[in-house]
Amino acid sequence: MTLSIPVTGDLATMAADVLARVRERRPRVHCITNAVAQNFTANMLLAAGAVPSMTITPDEVVDFVAGAAALLVNLGTLDPQRRAAIDIAVETAIDEGVPWVLDPVFVDRSPPRSDYAGALVQRKPSVIRLNRAEFRALAGFDAEGGALAGYAVDNLTAVGLTGEIDFVTDGTRLAVIENGHALMGRVTAMGCAGSALIAACLAVENDAWAATTAALITLGVAGEVAAAAAQGPGSFAAAILDALYALDGATLIDRARVA
Amino acid sequence: MTLSIPVTGDLATMAADVLARVRERRPRVHCITNAVAQNFTANMLLAAGAVPSMTITPDEVVDFVAGAAALLVNLGTLDPQRRAAIDIAVETAIDEGVPWVLDPVFVDRSPPRSDYAGALVQRKPSVIRLNRAEFRALAGFDAEGGALAGYAVDNLTAVGLTGEIDFVTDGTRLAVIENGHALMGRVTAMGCAGSALIAACLAVENDAWAATTAALITLGVAGEVAAAAAQGPGSFAAAILDALYALDGATLIDRARVA
Amino acid sequence: MTLSIPVTGDLATMAADVLARVRERRPRVHCITNAVAQNFTANMLLAAGAVPSMTITPDEVVDFVAGAAALLVNLGTLDPQRRAAIDIAVETAIDEGVPWVLDPVFVDRSPPRSDYAGALVQRKPSVIRLNRAEFRALAGFDAEGGALAGYAVDNLTAVGLTGEIDFVTDGTRLAVIENGHALMGRVTAMGCAGSALIAACLAVENDAWAATTAALITLGVAGEVAAAAAQGPGSFAAAILDALYALDGATLIDRARVA
Repeated sequence: MTLSIPVTGDLATMAADVLARVRERRPRVHCITNAVAQNFTANMLLAAGAVPSMTITPDEVVDFVAGAAALLVNLGTLDPQRRAAIDIAVETAIDEGVPWVLDPVFVDRSPPRSDYAGALVQRKPSVIRLNRAEFRALAGFDAEGGALAGYAVDNLTAVGLTGEIDFVTDGTRLAVIENGHALMGRVTAMGCAGSALIAACLAVENDAWAATTAALITLGVAGEVAAAAAQGPGSFAAAILDALYALDGATLIDRARVA
Repeated sequence: MTLSIPVTGDLATMAADVLARVRERRPRVHCITNAVAQNFTANMLLAAGAVPSMTITPDEVVDFVAGAAALLVNLGTLDPQRRAAIDIAVETAIDEGVPWVLDPVFVDRSPPRSDYAGALVQRKPSVIRLNRAEFRALAGFDAEGGALAGYAVDNLTAVGLTGEIDFVTDGTRLAVIENGHALMGRVTAMGCAGSALIAACLAVENDAWAATTAALITLGVAGEVAAAAAQGPGSFAAAILDALYALDGATLIDRARVA
Repeated sequence: MTLSIPVTGDLATMAADVLARVRERRPRVHCITNAVAQNFTANMLLAAGAVPSMTITPDEVVDFVAGAAALLVNLGTLDPQRRAAIDIAVETAIDEGVPWVLDPVFVDRSPPRSDYAGALVQRKPSVIRLNRAEFRALAGFDAEGGALAGYAVDNLTAVGLTGEIDFVTDGTRLAVIENGHALMGRVTAMGCAGSALIAACLAVENDAWAATTAALITLGVAGEVAAAAAQGPGSFAAAILDALYALDGATLIDRARVA
């Protein structure tokens, strides 16, 4: 399989355009996410211009998901109530045509969670965002060479593999993003909030690969801007929200390191 | 109905006095609030000088509410466990004479939640704090002209309607508060934390209308002070806690814009 | 009973050494902690160099605890699900030889919680971290004179009694720590996060008394450094994470006030 690799300028400009649309349309994003991540995720979405909701109550999830422009399903702190909520939420998203992002947090640490994540992949999330260890646990093989693209094709999804370098593929296209900062790994729920940002982009951009690429470029650049203002992980967590809120298109395009 | 409109200076001075009492008495405030808001709400109460507790466990709620000087009931992330806890907490508050605040978050987004909120209003909360969309969903009509005051009278409660301008009425008195800052809308749980601050004021001030007015003036002024120190919503969330903690009576009175 | 009181320099150097080991080994610490504390606790552990996990789902807890180097059991917001998770987690920790810390939050406020905490003490946590009011509720007597040491001996545990001055004893040794800052009492979950830091130290230091002493010295010094940079409790919460992240051994040794 040959992957087409877009020109950097195109992707950076596309990211700026997607971010502008999020700010203009202020999409509702419903998040079923773990207890540790809820507050930071909501603040990340608000900083980007989206409107978050977070309920996991069975009899409310249908209304919230049906009224949202995108859904995030994050498997952290996966208690029975969250699991029930996820089943209803995904069902509703599929019925209503709401795009959704799967974030299979820590599937490498818990076999029951890995099994459940595998079943969710069968329901065809628009995007799966995960790290290398989580990919290995979910796919059953390493994300090397063409394996990532093959997994995307086989599962009809876009995959955002994050780490020091982020890779985004839908099987035919590949984006390689070098933005970001080491302090992002020292703030809890940074990856979870990144997945929420993907959902916000997906709410205004139908091309799941483009939405994922835009979100990860944006988060990485915000992280770099924040690191310059931060004294450590505590001030960095606030600074990345400030940076995302204030990020202008020109800075985003100028700082994007994507191929 | 004629509403008496107090003199600005009186209300600002009253707010400073109520805040001083919170700091001096350090009232316990029990909060049944949503998962997204718990941490920020607890920090808001601590910054004000109150002592928060947050458990929603059925067999503990009675002791915590009975030992508190005020109760907050917030309907965000309204799962079955929170609902059970709210029923017990409100029952206890009524039995023990503990004043309570109802914050019907997002009742405009979820019909089951709206029904439940309506039933809680029947139990006569001391204060209801909500925004315009939530009021419409709860009351069944817009908060225009005398409608807000009529609703307060009919339900024997004080209503704090927050937005760019805040209105507080108990049906006979009206306060109009113009303090606040746009960044307050970009931090999750800011409204929820505001309701907790109302509860803290209610713990030291029996007049529910005065307590609500005091809390909303205080929060609005703290928001303005914080905005001057903040670079965006992340640093603003920290700065408003700093500002509330450090707010002196003279600044509060000087900056209050209330009629 | 005679308590041996170590030389200050020894304990400060020991604390610096334990912190260095946490940073080098990056131990996994599983936390069953209250909803208010989860995010701040995870960020505290990440700032220290440890790797937190937080799930309370019954069928996942075994894998997470068995794979962790230490366990924190915190009784805040003690709902039935957390209680079930704690039972499984403690069982697993005992079976697998994972050291664990008990933080009996607010046992002075809730008789059912106090009863449950008493039963957990019977299962011999490596460390109990609590304040004076919680100690009184749990032990049934005040932590005066030899009472604290007697309690530690009777229950075969190390006790970290925190307050303006912290006391750590295992019945034969006593550390008295005077580090810390008043703003630590104005940030929710500071004590909870301190207990998590004890767990992180316990993951790399078998001597529970030494691990507890190291953690409390480290947190106290970080709090002092943070206070110098903070404008109030909001910025302080971020600054203490920054300070912990950046704390070098020389500063720790220089600022430690321990006997």
